[in-house]
Amino acid sequence: MSLLTVGTVAFDAIETPFGKTDKIIGGSATYGSLAASYFSNDVKLVAVVGDDFPSADIALLESHGISTDGLQIKQGEKSFFWAGKYHIDMNSRDTLATELNVLADFDPVIPDSYQGVDYVMLGNLSPQVQKTVLERLEKKPKLVMMDTMNFWMDTAMDALVETIGMVDVLSINDAEARQLSGEYSLVKAAKKIMKMGPETLIIKKGENGALLFKQDLVFFAPALPLEEVYDPTGAGDTFAGGFIGYLAKTDDITFNNMKKAVIYGSALASFAVEKFGTERIIKITEDDMADRIERFIDLVQLEGRI
Amino acid sequence: MSLLTVGTVAFDAIETPFGKTDKIIGGSATYGSLAASYFSNDVKLVAVVGDDFPSADIALLESHGISTDGLQIKQGEKSFFWAGKYHIDMNSRDTLATELNVLADFDPVIPDSYQGVDYVMLGNLSPQVQKTVLERLEKKPKLVMMDTMNFWMDTAMDALVETIGMVDVLSINDAEARQLSGEYSLVKAAKKIMKMGPETLIIKKGENGALLFKQDLVFFAPALPLEEVYDPTGAGDTFAGGFIGYLAKTDDITFNNMKKAVIYGSALASFAVEKFGTERIIKITEDDMADRIERFIDLVQLEGRI
Repeated sequence: MSLLTVGTVAFDAIETPFGKTDKIIGGSATYGSLAASYFSNDVKLVAVVGDDFPSADIALLESHGISTDGLQIKQGEKSFFWAGKYHIDMNSRDTLATELNVLADFDPVIPDSYQGVDYVMLGNLSPQVQKTVLERLEKKPKLVMMDTMNFWMDTAMDALVETIGMVDVLSINDAEARQLSGEYSLVKAAKKIMKMGPETLIIKKGENGALLFKQDLVFFAPALPLEEVYDPTGAGDTFAGGFIGYLAKTDDITFNNMKKAVIYGSALASFAVEKFGTERIIKITEDDMADRIERFIDLVQLEGRI
Repeated sequence: MSLLTVGTVAFDAIETPFGKTDKIIGGSATYGSLAASYFSNDVKLVAVVGDDFPSADIALLESHGISTDGLQIKQGEKSFFWAGKYHIDMNSRDTLATELNVLADFDPVIPDSYQGVDYVMLGNLSPQVQKTVLERLEKKPKLVMMDTMNFWMDTAMDALVETIGMVDVLSINDAEARQLSGEYSLVKAAKKIMKMGPETLIIKKGENGALLFKQDLVFFAPALPLEEVYDPTGAGDTFAGGFIGYLAKTDDITFNNMKKAVIYGSALASFAVEKFGTERIIKITEDDMADRIERFIDLVQLEGRI
């Protein structure tokens, strides 16, 4: 099935306790579409960059079968740039620079060839832009997933709540679920947030796994215990792309299949953090994936009855 | 199989965002032996209290089939008392009072009737006392599990490391694993700690579940997402008691059976936090237990192939 990924395509400069990078390709739509490309050969990208964005990086996306017809290249403008430094716990970070550049007035254009798309991933981006994308789709997609972050809760809560009300699946982290709902208990938070619109909620807990909620159903996917996390940048976007990519591939949005999608999303995210930026997720083999999924299954597997 | 539980039997005064208690029965051996009593009808307690300790509370332990032959009652002395106040996240707390009283010079006595015991749980207690208990056992037990906490890392690291070197299974939380090993990565921390002696390590992560390590094997047991955690006091002790109680019941110390023991320990702990103190874990029915175990299994269960 076809899958539209919307979000940022950007430059990141990343520093972690293990090293630092120059400007490298990043952004929610970059990670999301690359992750999804392992499942769907019909991934369509909507994003914006400046004319400073290397054609080699665009070619990289295209080499993964991602359509860049919806990638606007703004002449005379610069790409979105983020620089950050992670602390030793890898969960907290300082933002060293945020240059919106082309994102400041991003008006998303949906190419005609994208209309009729089946699955949509609204990657982390201004909720107004996420909403505009949905309004510009002529046919209601089978499933819309939205990822967002606390920045929009701090700066654009009304627009955020409106957009959340339009989607089927929301993906946020535990701190964001608490902030959005005003509830400390994640079970209570999930109930409140599902009343805001999304039938399904994913609460990402980083190295502590992810919870999937739908009505009274709940599923927990562990994260793989890793020797080292080199760079958590894009892990959440990669998770989201892997999750919806798997749904688009299987075209099955039952709760049981969403459980499997959460495992695949978690597996993709576990690759993402093993190297800086997109370095690891641009070259995952089928064997890598099968091996990783097996490790996720083994991690919670019991032999025999309990 | 017979099981010896050593630790504190004490008074606690607890305050959480949901309420507060007067002095109630608490202590690592109380929670641990009560939890273990659901699996073994041959639980033997070694601890010390003052003459202020109510006979009704001792009778409560005995009503669970726990032998109190090894419970010293010091005339003219007072029982160990701890008072604490939990913060809204229920993971952090302030200690309001710690009165060692009878614990200050606790010299553990092993009754003759306890000799030859098969399984031993060294509940949280001074590592010197934990070590003394092991030295006073005439026959090497089949398995010794030790639970401890950061307090002993801060105040008695040498003795702690010595005692850790004598046990088969160590149970600590994630922050303690990091403190003990000096490694942030829990996988690296586990490797270092297993080199200190214990063949098996359990890293408890509270609401984020627990990891079981043995050599290169790893298993993850989730915690049950709960609407409310009323009082986390004793959850770790209850986990430890449930874990070793299940091992003693099944008399099977393979890694696969330890996985099941971690699920049972987690299930017991999930009951413990639902009410203040020991209120919930003194009356768990067989149906309660079966239902709870089913919820733990369902939480990570996939239908069909992935």
